[in-house]
Amino acid sequence: MSTEKLELLYEGKAKRIYKTDEPDILLVSYKDSATAFNGVKKEEITGKGRLNNEITTILFEKLTANNIDNHFVKRLSETEQLVKKVTIIPLEVVVRNVVAGSLSKRIGIEEGVILKQPLVEFYYKDDELGDPLITEDHIELLEVATKEQVETLKTLAKKVNEVLKAHFLTCNIQLIDFKLEFGVTSEGKIILADEVSPDTCRLWDTTTNEKFDKDVFRRNMGSLTEAYEEILTRLGGQSTCTK
Amino acid sequence: MSTEKLELLYEGKAKRIYKTDEPDILLVSYKDSATAFNGVKKEEITGKGRLNNEITTILFEKLTANNIDNHFVKRLSETEQLVKKVTIIPLEVVVRNVVAGSLSKRIGIEEGVILKQPLVEFYYKDDELGDPLITEDHIELLEVATKEQVETLKTLAKKVNEVLKAHFLTCNIQLIDFKLEFGVTSEGKIILADEVSPDTCRLWDTTTNEKFDKDVFRRNMGSLTEAYEEILTRLGGQSTCTK
Repeated sequence: MSTEKLELLYEGKAKRIYKTDEPDILLVSYKDSATAFNGVKKEEITGKGRLNNEITTILFEKLTANNIDNHFVKRLSETEQLVKKVTIIPLEVVVRNVVAGSLSKRIGIEEGVILKQPLVEFYYKDDELGDPLITEDHIELLEVATKEQVETLKTLAKKVNEVLKAHFLTCNIQLIDFKLEFGVTSEGKIILADEVSPDTCRLWDTTTNEKFDKDVFRRNMGSLTEAYEEILTRLGGQSTCTK
Repeated sequence: MSTEKLELLYEGKAKRIYKTDEPDILLVSYKDSATAFNGVKKEEITGKGRLNNEITTILFEKLTANNIDNHFVKRLSETEQLVKKVTIIPLEVVVRNVVAGSLSKRIGIEEGVILKQPLVEFYYKDDELGDPLITEDHIELLEVATKEQVETLKTLAKKVNEVLKAHFLTCNIQLIDFKLEFGVTSEGKIILADEVSPDTCRLWDTTTNEKFDKDVFRRNMGSLTEAYEEILTRLGGQSTCTK
């Protein structure tokens, strides 16, 4: 059965989403754009779309194998994959194992400090507001999720963390933190959506603390594609790196 | 019994705290300084110290009458009061009845929208970090209060809100939001500390929505002392306004 790519539904910073001829299936096309700081820093990086599509595929398949429901259906091509249609909950669910980035700036604890237990934070997905940190009471006030749904998001996010953290460790990578997005299916079930890639995770080498994630781009630390290729290779994916 | 003012213990933006000859009693001296935006905007305003000392006295006495334990002992002079010594918990506990200020900016809801229920937020008292909003999980991580203490803070803050909101309404004033600080006594009990004044509350006229609080200073909306005198007068205090 082939699924035909139809009308463009949505274009984000890193992906385009298309309708297909199957009403419950969407096509995701990964772009070669890298953006940071809410779109202020921007660059075209050849190969980034392919790498994120491949890495996300491997990680979603890993999550599926661990009984974590998600929107992934199948990889279609180098830069395209099919996913289940869901209504995205406008929350960025961040899980942290180690202090880094905005958490370090917010609470004044040095980057690299290991947390006693994983920390879950919610950010309100709104570019105009700059995706602000919000509390569970703010979520209730904004009516973007019910209290029960928030509990489900926290439970699912921690489960995803356990699976990914353990898997990355086998590849000699520390999962420092990551951002998830969830969606509600037509049956009302909350499942994991969006992507899981070095764009949305902080990934450090276990031994050297070398960074293999978007911080390489944010902080001008070298070649983003080389870092992402390293992740793909360690995850056992097919690297086409030409370095 | 007289209490003698001894060594200066601490000087903040709006108050000086002195030791007294009684080990469990401190003397608070209210300054005439007005500051905003973490000290970036600054001005000397004659009479402000007296007004905040008088208003805080009236409001703490009201809270005491409603069985809300607090640090207030007695007013000593125009600008001075005695308080019980406590260890301040480094959290600003904000209660909101109506959307205003930073909440409006954070979540994109217009100033003036009435909340279905009071909202409690916690900000980490740290000038260098800019007193950031933090979640209950951040509080646990920072170890500034236990989970149980956070619950106590929320319960106490909502109780303070009920008493103050009702009392201000009898003066034709809407209590929009306010910031509280709590302290732990030598016996380990959490009690209300700091001040409750137009420096720490948003207070709007019920009929006209005219502002009688520090936003008058923050937003250059006229005479701060006239606004604070209006609050003092409506609360039944002795106004010495010379307008």
